[in-house]
Amino acid sequence: MKPKIKIGICGYGNLGRGVEAEINQNPDMELVAVFTRREPAASLKIKANVPVVHVGKAAEWADKIDVMILCGGSASDLPAQGPAFAKLFNTVDSYDTHAKIPEYLAKIDEAAKAGGHIAVISGGWDPGLFSLMRLYTGAILPSGETHTFWGKGVSQGHSDAVRRVEGVANAIQYTIPSEAVMAQIRSGESVDLPASRKHKRVCYVVAAQGADTVKIEQTIKEMPDYFAGYDTTVHFITAEEMARDHSSMGHGGHVLHMGKTGVNGNSQVIEFALKLESNPEFTSSVLIALARAAYRLAEKGERGGRTIFDIPPILLSPRDAAEEIKNLL
Amino acid sequence: MKPKIKIGICGYGNLGRGVEAEINQNPDMELVAVFTRREPAASLKIKANVPVVHVGKAAEWADKIDVMILCGGSASDLPAQGPAFAKLFNTVDSYDTHAKIPEYLAKIDEAAKAGGHIAVISGGWDPGLFSLMRLYTGAILPSGETHTFWGKGVSQGHSDAVRRVEGVANAIQYTIPSEAVMAQIRSGESVDLPASRKHKRVCYVVAAQGADTVKIEQTIKEMPDYFAGYDTTVHFITAEEMARDHSSMGHGGHVLHMGKTGVNGNSQVIEFALKLESNPEFTSSVLIALARAAYRLAEKGERGGRTIFDIPPILLSPRDAAEEIKNLL
Repeated sequence: MKPKIKIGICGYGNLGRGVEAEINQNPDMELVAVFTRREPAASLKIKANVPVVHVGKAAEWADKIDVMILCGGSASDLPAQGPAFAKLFNTVDSYDTHAKIPEYLAKIDEAAKAGGHIAVISGGWDPGLFSLMRLYTGAILPSGETHTFWGKGVSQGHSDAVRRVEGVANAIQYTIPSEAVMAQIRSGESVDLPASRKHKRVCYVVAAQGADTVKIEQTIKEMPDYFAGYDTTVHFITAEEMARDHSSMGHGGHVLHMGKTGVNGNSQVIEFALKLESNPEFTSSVLIALARAAYRLAEKGERGGRTIFDIPPILLSPRDAAEEIKNLL
Repeated sequence: MKPKIKIGICGYGNLGRGVEAEINQNPDMELVAVFTRREPAASLKIKANVPVVHVGKAAEWADKIDVMILCGGSASDLPAQGPAFAKLFNTVDSYDTHAKIPEYLAKIDEAAKAGGHIAVISGGWDPGLFSLMRLYTGAILPSGETHTFWGKGVSQGHSDAVRRVEGVANAIQYTIPSEAVMAQIRSGESVDLPASRKHKRVCYVVAAQGADTVKIEQTIKEMPDYFAGYDTTVHFITAEEMARDHSSMGHGGHVLHMGKTGVNGNSQVIEFALKLESNPEFTSSVLIALARAAYRLAEKGERGGRTIFDIPPILLSPRDAAEEIKNLL
């Protein structure tokens, strides 16, 4: 029997806890340690029966871990942690600051090559699986149009923006794709609309006592970049309703690609959709599959930064290639 | 500017004509010749302004073609043609006899290695893109369940079976996925049903003059392997209605994967769907993207038989990798 792939988790938020939980679905892997910035590290209580180690001591684990799954955030954790860890370990992360991905990949690639490792960036579902679908569909029908719809799900950035409005005690914002626009594309119609016309925004707001709810609603709806131009609905609810009804971590979305072929302009519509009851648990599951691929690429002697675009699909599977060809092809 | 990828087409049925038409969507490629078994080859009239060559002279084109797209059928053409051509050219085919794929791949691999080529088998959408989705989703949620639904579309095998029934002058059979079962899976329900409960079959039959339509309907519905156990509907129509209403080459289907994550058993549903107005034109588009990948793998010095499972997704794209990462990831 092959040795199990030894996994480390760095960062124990929703994503780290997701990896800890889902790794059990993968009998070819085992969790060996969780790394945290907390001081003392031992103050972090985890579910798995493995050591909790301070990130400062990660280098001591370089020989004991095959792939480190970086579960930190893109804003403050990964820009420094990604390259630093790629020198020590094969890594996988979910870096999702779209505009900075090329720059981040260049740094990671340099660090991974210097350390002799594979580092897979921007795993998850967007970036990640959705990116992959945009790539495949655009390669197959190159003159077609690709549309991405997000939701129904909570946008943390938009929720935060609403919480900063004067008089708002708490708030949550759901992004909801326009069913009407998706139906147009599915029927083969060409669509040229900004994201603001392809999505609706629904806010649930707990107002501070005595706050001016009319003004709050107006401020939200007119907020540039975030809400202006969108079909936005604002509901005022109580703190109890917020706690009871809005704790779901569900999310999802659709990638739709519509292309025309043939002299008759036949419509060809490809759709990829996710309906997730737990966004972090699903993202974790993608990272785990990518960790397997990272391990296998490293075993083959490959080095450097990678994205899901570079990875032969079979390397993600826990099953034997011949078996997958027989059963799935 | 890079030289264009020189493509040959072998076989000029629906699929070959599809490749001929869709190659124009790919400015990095050019069609250089069409190969046929017809005697004399020149009796085959094609649309593109390229030579029509008898398959017997294919070897003379070994240096003039980068990738040969084999557009023959799986039953009688590809078993011999696939290995023979993989000795002479990089090839792509749409071999779809599921049960014999491992055996076919082994022969192709041997021939391609002997000839120093790459041969990608079983391209298209099923096998092909659907296989890929079964692989990705099963790798990400390994303990989940994958369901494939085909249709709405014509099944040639079932149409042929109906045509063989006594008293049937002409017939066409549509396979239609059960919306109710798909809705169950989308809602996170586990489903354990045979294909016969996941699909309906609808037949349109032109009866021969004086034929016993009651007996025809009964014979169809009770036909073992093909219809017995299925929800089958038989409509009798005229030859005129057949010609007018049933010439569409549309098809499609769904791959649904439902897995559970976390201690709460959160449902995670992944769906990939195709809605095609032209099955052969879409299949051709997939083969063309795979031809690009075959060319690039061969350029890297790789040799042997491949499936879509082996191919790094970026190799399918006509665009530059850095550009795709920037725009799509």
